[in-house]
Amino acid sequence: MAKKIGVLLSGCGVKDGSEIHEAVITILALDRGGAEIKFIAPDKSQMHVVNHKTGEVTGEVRNVLTESARIARGEIDDIADVKADDLDGLILPGGFGAAKNLVDFAVKGAACTIHPEVDRLINDMVKGGKVIGVMCIAPAVLARAMKGKKQVQLTIGNDKDTAAALEAMGAKHVACKVDGIVVDKDNKIASTPAYMLGPSIKNVAEGIEKLVAKVIELA
Amino acid sequence: MAKKIGVLLSGCGVKDGSEIHEAVITILALDRGGAEIKFIAPDKSQMHVVNHKTGEVTGEVRNVLTESARIARGEIDDIADVKADDLDGLILPGGFGAAKNLVDFAVKGAACTIHPEVDRLINDMVKGGKVIGVMCIAPAVLARAMKGKKQVQLTIGNDKDTAAALEAMGAKHVACKVDGIVVDKDNKIASTPAYMLGPSIKNVAEGIEKLVAKVIELA
Repeated sequence: MAKKIGVLLSGCGVKDGSEIHEAVITILALDRGGAEIKFIAPDKSQMHVVNHKTGEVTGEVRNVLTESARIARGEIDDIADVKADDLDGLILPGGFGAAKNLVDFAVKGAACTIHPEVDRLINDMVKGGKVIGVMCIAPAVLARAMKGKKQVQLTIGNDKDTAAALEAMGAKHVACKVDGIVVDKDNKIASTPAYMLGPSIKNVAEGIEKLVAKVIELA
Repeated sequence: MAKKIGVLLSGCGVKDGSEIHEAVITILALDRGGAEIKFIAPDKSQMHVVNHKTGEVTGEVRNVLTESARIARGEIDDIADVKADDLDGLILPGGFGAAKNLVDFAVKGAACTIHPEVDRLINDMVKGGKVIGVMCIAPAVLARAMKGKKQVQLTIGNDKDTAAALEAMGAKHVACKVDGIVVDKDNKIASTPAYMLGPSIKNVAEGIEKLVAKVIELA
């Protein structure tokens, strides 16, 4: 039986949604690893729409689920309809969308709030002993979901301020290079810095491919 | 010296822009192959904006260059500012955007028109003996650019109607499986069916990785 791995997206584009390269490298590695992929996103408006050429916020309104469907090629479920029982594992790509649309870490830091369905699914996965993989800034989502509940080990690379914010939410940060992963064996959590470090897509891919292999192994 | 390969995008999402998986697999293979990547797109409105979850045209207006910048992570040039002399090779990922925004093949078939800057750059590349790689439906763009000028050999897989439309524009179609490439040695053109056949990202990646290796070899 193929392992069923959820990929939780947060839009489509590094500056206001899921980091596209990270998401696609994840999907390719999952498919090559024999996993079945289930795309998931919350049905809500994005915090921002950013013109990715100029970096300016445009004032447009776009929906996280609808824009995430671009990466999923159409087949994607509202997270409200997905239970931990439906999955053997869950992966969160990064991008500002993770920190803007799944939590509001991008504007509130350690005092951030989390989307209730994202909070539910992550907590149910952890309670059920199911593996979770997070990359780039997405460890902030996991740290927020576990805040006050369980200490998890995570990496976002080596950015001191971001690491401190994760630790303020109760996580333990471990520095890591872009081609490596950090594995919290007790909690079945794997993380990799991806574009928190970069610099290039080939560097990012090395860590993500290791993370996906670990997620499939532990699923 | 690294080979400088242009990646000509047409938006961000299979139904109205560049096919995201094809674009990212291309970029990753170029980076791993030691090439320097130059992202390019036309500065014009998309023919359509399609809700990728429902498949419906939304009536929104989005710009091809701006949306393509999502795949490029910001660094992308207007095709009007790019000369064949700036490049050692050029690759066109597929997606409906190629057939809607670079040409209007998606609605006019063999009678399609082509964006003047796309026409100029492709013709200058071919005249200069520089390699071009096309995948999925993007061979329709190349066939239109070469219409009445030069017969090129291309594949879009095995779809008879699409192949006939390419031949009506003067190209020679060669059937090909998703994990293969067709190489027109005389004109230094490589093509692969990608998501014209699919079905899965791992299948598509096999052909694209071969295409990128061939483009770098011939650049």
